Amino acid sequence: MTRLGEPSFRPRALLDSFAMEVLATTDDPLDDLSAHRSLRDDATFACRIVPTFRPDAYVNAHAAGFVNRVDRLIDEASEGRSGYDGYLAALRHRRQFFIDAGAVAADHGVRTPLSLRLDRSSATSLFERLRRGDVSRDDRDAFEAHMLYEMARMSVDDGLVMTVHPGSLRNHHPDTFAQYGPDSGHDIPIAVDFTTSLRPLLSDFGTEPGFHLVLFTLDESTFSRELAPLAGFYPSVYLGSPWWFLDAPDALMRFRSAVTETTGFSRYGGFVDDTRAFCSIPARHNVARRVEASYLARLVGEHRLSLARAREIIVDVIDAAPRRAFKL
Amino acid sequence: MTRLGEPSFRPRALLDSFAMEVLATTDDPLDDLSAHRSLRDDATFACRIVPTFRPDAYVNAHAAGFVNRVDRLIDEASEGRSGYDGYLAALRHRRQFFIDAGAVAADHGVRTPLSLRLDRSSATSLFERLRRGDVSRDDRDAFEAHMLYEMARMSVDDGLVMTVHPGSLRNHHPDTFAQYGPDSGHDIPIAVDFTTSLRPLLSDFGTEPGFHLVLFTLDESTFSRELAPLAGFYPSVYLGSPWWFLDAPDALMRFRSAVTETTGFSRYGGFVDDTRAFCSIPARHNVARRVEASYLARLVGEHRLSLARAREIIVDVIDAAPRRAFKL
Amino acid sequence: MTRLGEPSFRPRALLDSFAMEVLATTDDPLDDLSAHRSLRDDATFACRIVPTFRPDAYVNAHAAGFVNRVDRLIDEASEGRSGYDGYLAALRHRRQFFIDAGAVAADHGVRTPLSLRLDRSSATSLFERLRRGDVSRDDRDAFEAHMLYEMARMSVDDGLVMTVHPGSLRNHHPDTFAQYGPDSGHDIPIAVDFTTSLRPLLSDFGTEPGFHLVLFTLDESTFSRELAPLAGFYPSVYLGSPWWFLDAPDALMRFRSAVTETTGFSRYGGFVDDTRAFCSIPARHNVARRVEASYLARLVGEHRLSLARAREIIVDVIDAAPRRAFKL
Repeated sequence: MTRLGEPSFRPRALLDSFAMEVLATTDDPLDDLSAHRSLRDDATFACRIVPTFRPDAYVNAHAAGFVNRVDRLIDEASEGRSGYDGYLAALRHRRQFFIDAGAVAADHGVRTPLSLRLDRSSATSLFERLRRGDVSRDDRDAFEAHMLYEMARMSVDDGLVMTVHPGSLRNHHPDTFAQYGPDSGHDIPIAVDFTTSLRPLLSDFGTEPGFHLVLFTLDESTFSRELAPLAGFYPSVYLGSPWWFLDAPDALMRFRSAVTETTGFSRYGGFVDDTRAFCSIPARHNVARRVEASYLARLVGEHRLSLARAREIIVDVIDAAPRRAFKL
Repeated sequence: MTRLGEPSFRPRALLDSFAMEVLATTDDPLDDLSAHRSLRDDATFACRIVPTFRPDAYVNAHAAGFVNRVDRLIDEASEGRSGYDGYLAALRHRRQFFIDAGAVAADHGVRTPLSLRLDRSSATSLFERLRRGDVSRDDRDAFEAHMLYEMARMSVDDGLVMTVHPGSLRNHHPDTFAQYGPDSGHDIPIAVDFTTSLRPLLSDFGTEPGFHLVLFTLDESTFSRELAPLAGFYPSVYLGSPWWFLDAPDALMRFRSAVTETTGFSRYGGFVDDTRAFCSIPARHNVARRVEASYLARLVGEHRLSLARAREIIVDVIDAAPRRAFKL
Repeated sequence: MTRLGEPSFRPRALLDSFAMEVLATTDDPLDDLSAHRSLRDDATFACRIVPTFRPDAYVNAHAAGFVNRVDRLIDEASEGRSGYDGYLAALRHRRQFFIDAGAVAADHGVRTPLSLRLDRSSATSLFERLRRGDVSRDDRDAFEAHMLYEMARMSVDDGLVMTVHPGSLRNHHPDTFAQYGPDSGHDIPIAVDFTTSLRPLLSDFGTEPGFHLVLFTLDESTFSRELAPLAGFYPSVYLGSPWWFLDAPDALMRFRSAVTETTGFSRYGGFVDDTRAFCSIPARHNVARRVEASYLARLVGEHRLSLARAREIIVDVIDAAPRRAFKL
């Protein structure tokens, strides 16, 4: 507590001492981003803090309160259009608002990476039935899958990097959810299929110039089986850092070892620390850097890589990869 | 053969030289446990040999002879009650009989960890249809899933530690089964889902004080994806040692490395050797101890753990963990 | 280019300098194998080049042009028989033709390893409906599964080693397929189940004397969970080298480490390089040899194996294993 009172432990001072260049938050699509604008307009503030468009609450049709939020989205952002057209227009409009405020990415937390291409009339009719509550469980799944597809289309159009992290069964324990709400420690991973689930999305957008799709997972079995081959073929696909395991050296190493022989280093999305603990940021990046260096050192020791090339790669993986993947 | 004739190679002498403190057998719920009582009453016998309640044959509704065994269970142990009520009462009664004979655990070998909460009238009607043979394959699955749920409820009530080892397709080769019967080497693992399967059970009992649920698996992909996160959240869940791989150093090490960064050491159920070969017991525990020591040595070597802390942890993992998990 | 013009870089000279003893191609069942016969009759040519029976295009009922190819197969090879009987007879006939030309194996690329035993009348009727196009998606799946079963039966009868490599979703990207056709880099793996899928096939043929079934996979999660246990029980099952990862040292090592503790070394099918790049053959085998040697060196270093035994095993794994599995 004494320490936290010292000037050098004030948030801005820490930000300086951490030598942070970019920090991205995730934000509700209807957020006015006023805090971001204040920081942007503050000439004394060097770090680039950018918002990220996180539309889960407006596209995940299973979530409680979904319809009310959609109504509000259309009211506030559709510029007078209504129904499914208004809904898509509002999402596009808010994405542009985020881009104007410095956003580089749209982040999608989904149960599965299922994607589905519905034609406009089917999507419209499904959307209206959803709003009336006249839908089955499968209908809600279909809508979510269709919206993942539509979010990719919007990313192709407006250039926001699309990040997807599927495979967490949220709120596993009902009593804990009732008492403490979401994000209270009981999201538990499930097995994920990327290959067939993402096929509709990748068939139509996977080779679009400028489209960047960063895939995260909690299911290690997909590292070599699906993610590395997908990133090896599709120029849009980047390998997200291993999410759940971001402060776990062995897990980071398993990821690195599982994907690199298939895709090399260049398809890596860079280390994304995904933390809410401000002071953990430098430590997390430090752990990741050491793991990368350790992996490269092994390749050099095994005569699979020259020391000179390893020296180039470590800079690329740590510094260039996130700039490349996130268009920084 | 000469050696086996020597006094120091008699079973009790070996038990002494192995310095075994506790040994658990698995037993049929209707076993009279007379052998256990004899040993318990033998003042010259130091090792604690305890029975384990293993009800598979009375709850796995797909097994041949299931109905006859259930009839016999009700006849012998329901104290005059009949039907589904008598069935549950008989199971409860036999569990208490095992507890009185020193049992600390109930062991459940199931094809999948599916759990299901049926209300009493649905369960009663399904049970009656099962006894008449008037059921589909899905009905049998539902009954098994419901009984896994009920077994958890009984463990909450009577304190027996619940161990579950799912994911083995038993008797893969029909000819071998016909000729040699079960447990003749052709049980083959299948992929397992714990996260969604156990949700009904864990939703209702996962945070019950005193409930201990030890999960074993043959599917390595669940180590980091499901088991470690479940044990990380639910105070009742303990990580079973990696079953199939109990004498396999690399596999033991993969397990240790996959779960520890998420759950630490304290959620480990301890090394359970699961062997029928008496003389293999010390060797198996010795292998496990060496693997744990080797893992800790690496963490110390990588400056992730102090030597002093590693010295504490090795004792905890080898000695305290099984006492804690199995209430010894 | 200058180098390729030198006499020592001509294909036959390279073949000599590679010291290649056996090379197997995969061939269409209706291929006349004239090139193979020419080489065989060439007294100046020492390497044994053998064809491999690859019937995918005639048994994978989802493939475009399937019916036309089946018609042609029956026309050319059924010796006057028609319908389903003619179809099976033609396949048998062409297998014998391959065996006469030196073939030792039949190779099966399938989406899943699903096997199914249809009785003759069901198979006949399904076959006729397939030819008329009067089938559902499930019907096509059933026919493919049935034909995998029939191919195993033929291997039992004629002794061709059966190799199966399932789990690749072929032609993931429609535009690339339209522009460049199949095998253009966008086959992406999916999760595979061997245990339940192969059960009908292994129940009937798994213990047949002389039957050899070599299983390949792209799904690492099956290494310890399914493949090693299957090869540990069924005398017919051999572990294929890890296909996709054939030039990837870490992946080869993960395979070796995952299966050996369960099945030992003797159930290994030997290193199959699966390459279309002629000059990569020695390098690939060299990598595989070094990985095997490195694994054995670790076991020796950990006092799990004597150096003398490791010296025997390295020869067995590299040289004897493929001869044994492929009856060379």
